[in-house]
Amino acid sequence: MPFLDLMQNFKLTIQYDGTNYHGWQMQANARTIQGELTRVVSILDHRAVTIYGAGRTDAGVHAEAQIANFFAEREFEPRLLRDAINGNLENDIRVLDVEPVPDSFNARFSAVQKTYLYRIWTADVLSPFLCRYVYHYRGELDTEKMQRASESLLGRHDFTAFTVASSDAEDHIRTLICLKFEQQPNEISIFVTADGLLRYMVRTIVGTLVDVGRGKRTVASVVEALESLDRSRSGPSAPAHGLTLISVDY
Amino acid sequence: MPFLDLMQNFKLTIQYDGTNYHGWQMQANARTIQGELTRVVSILDHRAVTIYGAGRTDAGVHAEAQIANFFAEREFEPRLLRDAINGNLENDIRVLDVEPVPDSFNARFSAVQKTYLYRIWTADVLSPFLCRYVYHYRGELDTEKMQRASESLLGRHDFTAFTVASSDAEDHIRTLICLKFEQQPNEISIFVTADGLLRYMVRTIVGTLVDVGRGKRTVASVVEALESLDRSRSGPSAPAHGLTLISVDY
Repeated sequence: MPFLDLMQNFKLTIQYDGTNYHGWQMQANARTIQGELTRVVSILDHRAVTIYGAGRTDAGVHAEAQIANFFAEREFEPRLLRDAINGNLENDIRVLDVEPVPDSFNARFSAVQKTYLYRIWTADVLSPFLCRYVYHYRGELDTEKMQRASESLLGRHDFTAFTVASSDAEDHIRTLICLKFEQQPNEISIFVTADGLLRYMVRTIVGTLVDVGRGKRTVASVVEALESLDRSRSGPSAPAHGLTLISVDY
Repeated sequence: MPFLDLMQNFKLTIQYDGTNYHGWQMQANARTIQGELTRVVSILDHRAVTIYGAGRTDAGVHAEAQIANFFAEREFEPRLLRDAINGNLENDIRVLDVEPVPDSFNARFSAVQKTYLYRIWTADVLSPFLCRYVYHYRGELDTEKMQRASESLLGRHDFTAFTVASSDAEDHIRTLICLKFEQQPNEISIFVTADGLLRYMVRTIVGTLVDVGRGKRTVASVVEALESLDRSRSGPSAPAHGLTLISVDY
């Protein structure tokens, strides 16, 4: 990284509708959130910029407030930089805030915890305004049982049974800090807060809990799946489009 | 209409995201809401069905609860009919409810009043989740002045100055029953209730009020425009995508 002492580290708060993107992480032949931001910021900083992101959301996953950072060689006024980036992006990605931060700040490694929201729509008819943001499960779900089953996942565990075999994480030990249910007439919202989340982890937790809620598996089977460290013992992954990264805490 | 006495009149409550449609009204070479419903209901009733709609929303305008009706020759259980229609539509149109009604019910002519909502997003950055449903006006709007100007439009008037010259309505006299403002931190919502609304009427009222709010015209100029019966005296039409048909009362 050239002239680090002359560069400014900027923290970006980013909102996106992930429907039309192949996830966060840059890819050679697909539109991604990191790819779009890298393209635009590199144009503005007149060089190939690296964007560091807090959470590598999957294809179709959304963000209320994804956090990223990058080092700028040129001088930027934060609000003007925000507007310049937004002016070069599609409407479905927006930088909400740009903030100068100390060099030591790294969006990924400085993060203390992240909160995701998974939305399940339970009414017979799915609203056209929400179809891109909720998973439509048409039927009865016993949320009391789902909540009880979720409690066994709280705390520090090896979550191998709730991630993909191909996960490139060094280990699968994470701390699930909070799992909160909110029930509205047509919707169940599940908020998941952890110090880190493995690939597919929230979606596999939700898919497993839905199986509990519909009576396809027992409450006890969830802790058994967790302890087995065997992906085949947990439930299916719930669809990506019901998932939104809500916040990253530092 | 064959065998009217053997046919059942059904009332449909329909929700749609109008982004990808050329409005309500059937057209030869464009996808419309009425066109999609006519196609699907005709398949289900095994004949060419006519769908009567309450409000002919323009291209890009949305509906929380558009009302329509049609006469079915075959027998249908309302919930199964609802599901069968939805199963043949894209996600962005949904029949929320199907209800058998007396033959005398006509979605358009039985309507007593309609309520539309126009949403103006006033924060610097537009949320990717709302960009299809709000008009982004970046700047200060004096809502107190907008509200005062709106009051002169209430009641029974000839709204020629607030519709298009090509309007095919028999006359331009309508009663504006209610014009209600709601202000949130990032958004101004304007609810407009009338016994009937001319083409572009809500959007031209909103565009004119925005010109008042930004100081481009005076409060008094709005009643002057109304009384002039001259379209060139009112403001521009606000964009279609900020407008949603909220309800139709019978």
